[in-house]
Amino acid sequence: MAPQLDGYFKQVDSMSGHFIERLRKAVAIPSVSADEARRPDVVRMGEFLAQELKALGAHVEARLLGKQPGLEHLELPPVIVARYGNDKNKRTILVYGHYDVQPAGKEDGWATEPFELTIDDKGRMFGRGSTDDKGPVLGWLNAIEAHQKAGIDFPVNLLMCFEGMEENGSEGLDDFINAEAKKFFADTDAVCISDNYWLGTEKPCLTYGLRGVSYYSVEVSGPGADLHSGVFGGTAQEPMTDLVRILGGLVDTHGKIQIAGLDALVAPLTADEKDLYTNIAFTMDNLHESLGSQTTIFPDKERTLMARWRYPSLSVHGIEGAFSQPGAKTVIPAKVIGKFSIRTVPDMQPEDVDRLVFKHVNDHFKTLGSKNTMKVSLLHAGKWWVASPNHWNFSAASKATERVWGVKPDLTREGGSIPVTLTFEQATGKNVLLLPMGSSTDGAHSINEKLDKKNYIEGIKLLGAYLHYVAEEPLN
Amino acid sequence: MAPQLDGYFKQVDSMSGHFIERLRKAVAIPSVSADEARRPDVVRMGEFLAQELKALGAHVEARLLGKQPGLEHLELPPVIVARYGNDKNKRTILVYGHYDVQPAGKEDGWATEPFELTIDDKGRMFGRGSTDDKGPVLGWLNAIEAHQKAGIDFPVNLLMCFEGMEENGSEGLDDFINAEAKKFFADTDAVCISDNYWLGTEKPCLTYGLRGVSYYSVEVSGPGADLHSGVFGGTAQEPMTDLVRILGGLVDTHGKIQIAGLDALVAPLTADEKDLYTNIAFTMDNLHESLGSQTTIFPDKERTLMARWRYPSLSVHGIEGAFSQPGAKTVIPAKVIGKFSIRTVPDMQPEDVDRLVFKHVNDHFKTLGSKNTMKVSLLHAGKWWVASPNHWNFSAASKATERVWGVKPDLTREGGSIPVTLTFEQATGKNVLLLPMGSSTDGAHSINEKLDKKNYIEGIKLLGAYLHYVAEEPLN
Repeated sequence: MAPQLDGYFKQVDSMSGHFIERLRKAVAIPSVSADEARRPDVVRMGEFLAQELKALGAHVEARLLGKQPGLEHLELPPVIVARYGNDKNKRTILVYGHYDVQPAGKEDGWATEPFELTIDDKGRMFGRGSTDDKGPVLGWLNAIEAHQKAGIDFPVNLLMCFEGMEENGSEGLDDFINAEAKKFFADTDAVCISDNYWLGTEKPCLTYGLRGVSYYSVEVSGPGADLHSGVFGGTAQEPMTDLVRILGGLVDTHGKIQIAGLDALVAPLTADEKDLYTNIAFTMDNLHESLGSQTTIFPDKERTLMARWRYPSLSVHGIEGAFSQPGAKTVIPAKVIGKFSIRTVPDMQPEDVDRLVFKHVNDHFKTLGSKNTMKVSLLHAGKWWVASPNHWNFSAASKATERVWGVKPDLTREGGSIPVTLTFEQATGKNVLLLPMGSSTDGAHSINEKLDKKNYIEGIKLLGAYLHYVAEEPLN
Repeated sequence: MAPQLDGYFKQVDSMSGHFIERLRKAVAIPSVSADEARRPDVVRMGEFLAQELKALGAHVEARLLGKQPGLEHLELPPVIVARYGNDKNKRTILVYGHYDVQPAGKEDGWATEPFELTIDDKGRMFGRGSTDDKGPVLGWLNAIEAHQKAGIDFPVNLLMCFEGMEENGSEGLDDFINAEAKKFFADTDAVCISDNYWLGTEKPCLTYGLRGVSYYSVEVSGPGADLHSGVFGGTAQEPMTDLVRILGGLVDTHGKIQIAGLDALVAPLTADEKDLYTNIAFTMDNLHESLGSQTTIFPDKERTLMARWRYPSLSVHGIEGAFSQPGAKTVIPAKVIGKFSIRTVPDMQPEDVDRLVFKHVNDHFKTLGSKNTMKVSLLHAGKWWVASPNHWNFSAASKATERVWGVKPDLTREGGSIPVTLTFEQATGKNVLLLPMGSSTDGAHSINEKLDKKNYIEGIKLLGAYLHYVAEEPLN
């Protein structure tokens, strides 16, 4: 039975001005977690959230995580955890979001003041954090308030976990989630995260998979110090010569990874899965637009989506220690560190990837016959995540989306990582759903970040509707 | 007939304290040409030189070169030109040096104050500019003064050209030399530059050759802006993938340049020339010490010296536009610019080198099948220089060296470039000699730069003796 949501939707519409004001207040707090000088603003933003939640009658705790590793004079901003409702007969849904934002300044090229919510005649609400992730976080608060004002019973117990360091490494969060899994988060039945985006601008989606990442360094060193290429060129083996050869042997122009054995780790494509990609609302024009060029590997959307979501990729990011400035410097760098990473997918186990990468790089280096010293290392690894989109958590979200937006959502995966997703899945043992509010053009980490008014208001309806459907959905 | 130099030598020895004081005064002026804030000190150093020369009775002019290109609020420091003697019956020798220095600060790791000449118990005179190039420049002034004090007739007319921008690109100097070749420098019979170093620490040398350098950039671009490797990895052709392949195809670990046709441009090695390398005072231990490692390409000194002096080499310097910081950033750089250079030797014509490099890189890029855009460009080129060591200018210097140091000097070339050498040769049409004062361990551009007291005092004798021999040497 479809939940009776009409009253809730009407209430949201009637409070839309109030909800936009709440977003305006939040955007006005420049809670930039990567900027040491802004740390008090991050804390202030956490306090703002806590106050708003308390005013709504939630039980709220600001949990301190200690000092920031490596910057011990800095206190980490608190994780704001809250509970709204404690009815044993209701399901308990844990939602996650973050209240910190990326840096932003008018001097970066913003058309408006980044920390003043500015709405244009197309209903685009510009401001840092509008879509990432203050809009979605406030979405949950707004859903609670609209239920109260409309006198509609809140359908679930809502647990909330809002952090203030997402844009700066989520320091301390994994430990916190693991520690609270059997405490504050103990009665979680399912998890919902609203911190990603539609694949395009028109069609909503639910996201059930993310790629992992294994990030490597290759350090080659020889001379005791940087050398002058006039004096030493031709007489010393140069670390850069070895390094560019190794980096050049990792992947080809067409994205084909050259590391033997890696392909065999990838889950085979089934005919059923292959059919999924045809129906996704996505065109090569979308990709060309976001790339700003036509330099795609594949000409068709199916192979492109598969390459982004379900196949590994390898990117060479750069070199530390070499000459990287404009101009011409005749240096032979003494020690250079190449950086590359592999986006991983089911069923690649990170330790198998490491083993194959190390073997490939070591074997390649041996063929060079170099007297230099080479060391290949894993810098960090995050595992891929794939949830079952048939779980009741997803079917509830799908019904809610269809009810609000009038269309069945695409079931999508993403090429990037949201590490907290896997952390919540592993810590709680429950299904995790990614339920985006904003669209692909919101520019989360760019200048002129925005959230469309329509996505915000319909998004508030969606979050509330999801909670109604998730309360009723039969177990599967 | 050997010139009667005993009186001059005795005079130099008796004035050594005075000459060291003169060097102390010069080192105390921090004439760092690359530091905008130090520009007044550079000018002050030029004025100091001009005053000292005037006091010795020289005709001195401070020639202004105009504004510094790209930093038009900065006046270039003057070139100090001087003439000492104007006797039609004497040869006229043009000498060059520079009065500016590299940057230096205690915080870089200097054991002493860099701008205070500090003499240790081994007679090492530490101080920025001591060996590069204030010691040699003052050497000419000291030679004049010792002749005056000893009452010995100065054997030549001496033209001097001392610039203040050598460590910062010698801005404007080429034009100045070309303009003055038929004016202030018109009656030059030969040129002598004292601005390089012995090959080792024990045996003096005369230098008759330098390699040239052709410096290239390879720019690969694709997307409109930097991309996130999670979102775009596997779907877009990555400029870095193409660039590291191109850079990896230029040279191998053993220094073998992979550019077809380049070897054929190199003058063949004759049996006579080959024999020269055996007798040069140089050991692989010297090289290992200066490298700080054993990572040499060749195990023997002969091939090592040939590789440094008479064969081309290719060095990959770095990449602009890629991730170059410590840590791990998952960026796909949108535009990356690789930098490499080739040290050139006789008979390589720069335009032939360009042609072969452009063809090689373009051909390689075509084999990649990339949709990205690639552009290979020459950033700058300086030609190699080789003088005839049989010229009277060299035989005079050889005799002077044997007289002062008791040993025939090695005839050496250098792997690096001193572009002004070729400029003087071409502008004046006369033989140019490089006559070093300091030794290989002086650390010209490093911390703890020094000039040994013995090299300074014997060097003053050498410069004076050279002028006596060069005055008498028969034309050849």
